[in-house]
Amino acid sequence: MRILKGAEISAEIKKQVQEILASVSGHAPMAAIVRVGEKPDDISYEKGAQKKLAAFGLTSQSYVFPETIPDEEFRREFAKINEDKAVDGILLLRPLPKQIDEKAVERMIRPEKDLDGISPINSAKVFAGEADGFAPCTAEAVIEVLKGAGIAIEGRRAVIVGRSMVVGRPLSMLLLKENATVTICHTRTRDLKAVCKEGDILIAAAGKAGMLTAEYVAEGAVVIDVGINVDADGHLCGDVKWDGLEDVASAATPVPGGVGGVTTAVLAKHLALAALRKQEKGSTAGA
Amino acid sequence: MRILKGAEISAEIKKQVQEILASVSGHAPMAAIVRVGEKPDDISYEKGAQKKLAAFGLTSQSYVFPETIPDEEFRREFAKINEDKAVDGILLLRPLPKQIDEKAVERMIRPEKDLDGISPINSAKVFAGEADGFAPCTAEAVIEVLKGAGIAIEGRRAVIVGRSMVVGRPLSMLLLKENATVTICHTRTRDLKAVCKEGDILIAAAGKAGMLTAEYVAEGAVVIDVGINVDADGHLCGDVKWDGLEDVASAATPVPGGVGGVTTAVLAKHLALAALRKQEKGSTAGA
Repeated sequence: MRILKGAEISAEIKKQVQEILASVSGHAPMAAIVRVGEKPDDISYEKGAQKKLAAFGLTSQSYVFPETIPDEEFRREFAKINEDKAVDGILLLRPLPKQIDEKAVERMIRPEKDLDGISPINSAKVFAGEADGFAPCTAEAVIEVLKGAGIAIEGRRAVIVGRSMVVGRPLSMLLLKENATVTICHTRTRDLKAVCKEGDILIAAAGKAGMLTAEYVAEGAVVIDVGINVDADGHLCGDVKWDGLEDVASAATPVPGGVGGVTTAVLAKHLALAALRKQEKGSTAGA
Repeated sequence: MRILKGAEISAEIKKQVQEILASVSGHAPMAAIVRVGEKPDDISYEKGAQKKLAAFGLTSQSYVFPETIPDEEFRREFAKINEDKAVDGILLLRPLPKQIDEKAVERMIRPEKDLDGISPINSAKVFAGEADGFAPCTAEAVIEVLKGAGIAIEGRRAVIVGRSMVVGRPLSMLLLKENATVTICHTRTRDLKAVCKEGDILIAAAGKAGMLTAEYVAEGAVVIDVGINVDADGHLCGDVKWDGLEDVASAATPVPGGVGGVTTAVLAKHLALAALRKQEKGSTAGA
């Protein structure tokens, strides 16, 4: 079984980012990372993103607000970041605390700065298969892993376990765009094992530690594990148990070391693209 | 095999519309039907919509523009209809002639008047499984047929052939919302016959006359035919050939007489809902 390492895919994306940056003049593109509260998950993702952006020749600035910030005040602060011309892209760490109307913030974010594809405009573009928006980074990271590893998608059966707006749903549309035949499973799916075994490509995005075992995998299938969970011993683990996996799967992404790092690489690519598109738009407007 | 007649589902939707209208005060809600050119398909759909709206106690007004209308002029005219307070909902007949930027019109239409779910805001809501927008009428008509006929959706395999933004893609998300396990097929799907046979519910939305035969249908499956095609003899026909279908399917929608008439009933329901929501919003604003 081939182990699909995120670091290799990430290095490939870094080259693409450098090519984009060669066309961007002026300062290095800057991402605003917006965090509300001190959730360890958020802080860990923020650190990973900062590190990846810096490694790719990009910059970031963190905007941290207290957990208890009132809705109206947060939206006022967010509007300032959203309108700031020095900010090329925005990463909003979610979920937000309950007092904040998250849907309203999604509608508010400028689509051209929306690095993680949360605005309805970008969402509609992903849904329609249009390429000029931004897809959620994790969903796009799965496509990058498959393409980067040279795994054919067209005409193959892709089975996705999970239907969130962060991974499952957008990924179904990205895979459809690549001409896969796509099946979406979830908690109400009957005989999940049999359905998963239909997949030439099986994507675990349920967010449930070790819920898929080798028994769910077809002979020769490619397994992409999007899950990031903490097991009973406090270790990071995916949605897929590896015992016996090497006997059936042809390839699989590990956790950690798989899709996670590619997600921040996609974030960096989105930031570079946002800066390039801004520049192109500016030069057209000025022409 | 049970024949699922659109007329019966439509009668059921009429009752729902009457219930909604009982809460709407003032004039009967009015739909603007916007047509560019004189395509027979458009005229036929327009007539069907007018008739259905009238039968449901609603009104409509047609706005017809010449085939050659320039983009800018059309958008100016469309903006007037869009902003007209007497217009509760809009049905734009598509595709538009090539000189018109159809995507720009989709972005322009007020989401609260967007009866056929073409605006990115409504599209994003359907994608996310939110219920307060408008889905494309044909996609929603399939759900109405299944529910109206008492066919269980939750936990069942639904296979959709076709991935358009009018039916396939939005329908996949509507079926997911009803907790079906959804598979989306298309022209690049390998062994389409075998994949179709996985469906407890098989939806033909490819727009290709008679492309699915009884051989594509699993024993006891429900077949919903969304296709509206004209065969070599000039007769209206669906995507499904009926020869031998009664020996395998448990139920099927005919063409004509199936989903088509339900689509205009859903259009009427959307218009009634648009008027009700406008009134509720108005009373909140005034409170």
